[in-house]
Amino acid sequence: MKAYTDYIWFNTKKHREYVNVTDRVAEAVQKSGVREGFVLVSAMHITAGVYVNDAESGLIRDIDDWLQQLAPEGPDYRHHQTGETNGDAHLKSLLIHHQVIVPITEGRLDLGPWQQVYYAEFDGQRRKRMVIKVMGE
Amino acid sequence: MKAYTDYIWFNTKKHREYVNVTDRVAEAVQKSGVREGFVLVSAMHITAGVYVNDAESGLIRDIDDWLQQLAPEGPDYRHHQTGETNGDAHLKSLLIHHQVIVPITEGRLDLGPWQQVYYAEFDGQRRKRMVIKVMGE
Amino acid sequence: MKAYTDYIWFNTKKHREYVNVTDRVAEAVQKSGVREGFVLVSAMHITAGVYVNDAESGLIRDIDDWLQQLAPEGPDYRHHQTGETNGDAHLKSLLIHHQVIVPITEGRLDLGPWQQVYYAEFDGQRRKRMVIKVMGE
Repeated sequence: MKAYTDYIWFNTKKHREYVNVTDRVAEAVQKSGVREGFVLVSAMHITAGVYVNDAESGLIRDIDDWLQQLAPEGPDYRHHQTGETNGDAHLKSLLIHHQVIVPITEGRLDLGPWQQVYYAEFDGQRRKRMVIKVMGE
Repeated sequence: MKAYTDYIWFNTKKHREYVNVTDRVAEAVQKSGVREGFVLVSAMHITAGVYVNDAESGLIRDIDDWLQQLAPEGPDYRHHQTGETNGDAHLKSLLIHHQVIVPITEGRLDLGPWQQVYYAEFDGQRRKRMVIKVMGE
Repeated sequence: MKAYTDYIWFNTKKHREYVNVTDRVAEAVQKSGVREGFVLVSAMHITAGVYVNDAESGLIRDIDDWLQQLAPEGPDYRHHQTGETNGDAHLKSLLIHHQVIVPITEGRLDLGPWQQVYYAEFDGQRRKRMVIKVMGE
């Protein structure tokens, strides 16, 4: 069994930003030498997410609008009594989920034709981290 | 370490449809010969989901109503400027999530008494695919 | 390859309750002897969830309010025609998701500084179970 771990740092220019990390995940799989297995892609912060969907700019804006609607910014979160202002970012992270697993088959990411892996930043403009963990043979 | 990969094709009669795939997943685990490990069940399309919940027809209709309410069909998605009409199906996929992992213990799916694995089609009536990937020993 | 399985029982005092299980997961990893791998933490019931987020009491109440808003209790679920009254708990489970994977690196849970693993009970005051499955080397 082989295992390989990589960490990717982000420091997004915008408060909310969607970064296609598919190539970074593929690179980690290649470095691992794993031909059959799983790769976990997981945000290490509680105000960011990781998801699989389409690399289409209109859709990404639709996703952002939708997250704003279902987990809106606002002053009224109890979490803000701690001095924080990012209650919405925690809920957005829970909604989109903070991780995905991609199967590895014959040394490649076994994704469908339109599936791309995205890091979703909901409280950016600071250094944040994502873990890529490959396991298999 | 053993790995086994299977692909299931769907071509649902309805635009949205919920298909119980628990037996198909159990079959893949049996074929794999894995006694202890994980099985990943993952949609390969970005307008479909995979989830674990109850095989109760009333509840399945509740889930469908709820998804329609939180990720409604409509003309106003920016994604539709590409010619697509399935913006809602992308959001439904993100909401329900596109994959689950089932633990394998003593050669069997280690599910609770009411847990069933479902493929959730949100843009059907066409050929679509799901991957089942087993890994363990 | 090593595999280790543990089951945790809950019987919460409240109907909805959020239980920090991070130490229980770390304990299972230690018992497993796995230094590099994955640990799956998964509810075995369809009215409970597992998520990763902050151990801050205000935020936990925000999460509870938010789940109540997006998946409200109510008399009108079709599922209730079976005699059940917990339709909302099924939807809350789907929204928050019922499982997470934590990477294991150098024998430890490879979590970010604020990441904690929570069991989320949505229909408690009865015995329910969660599986922890460790796999790796």
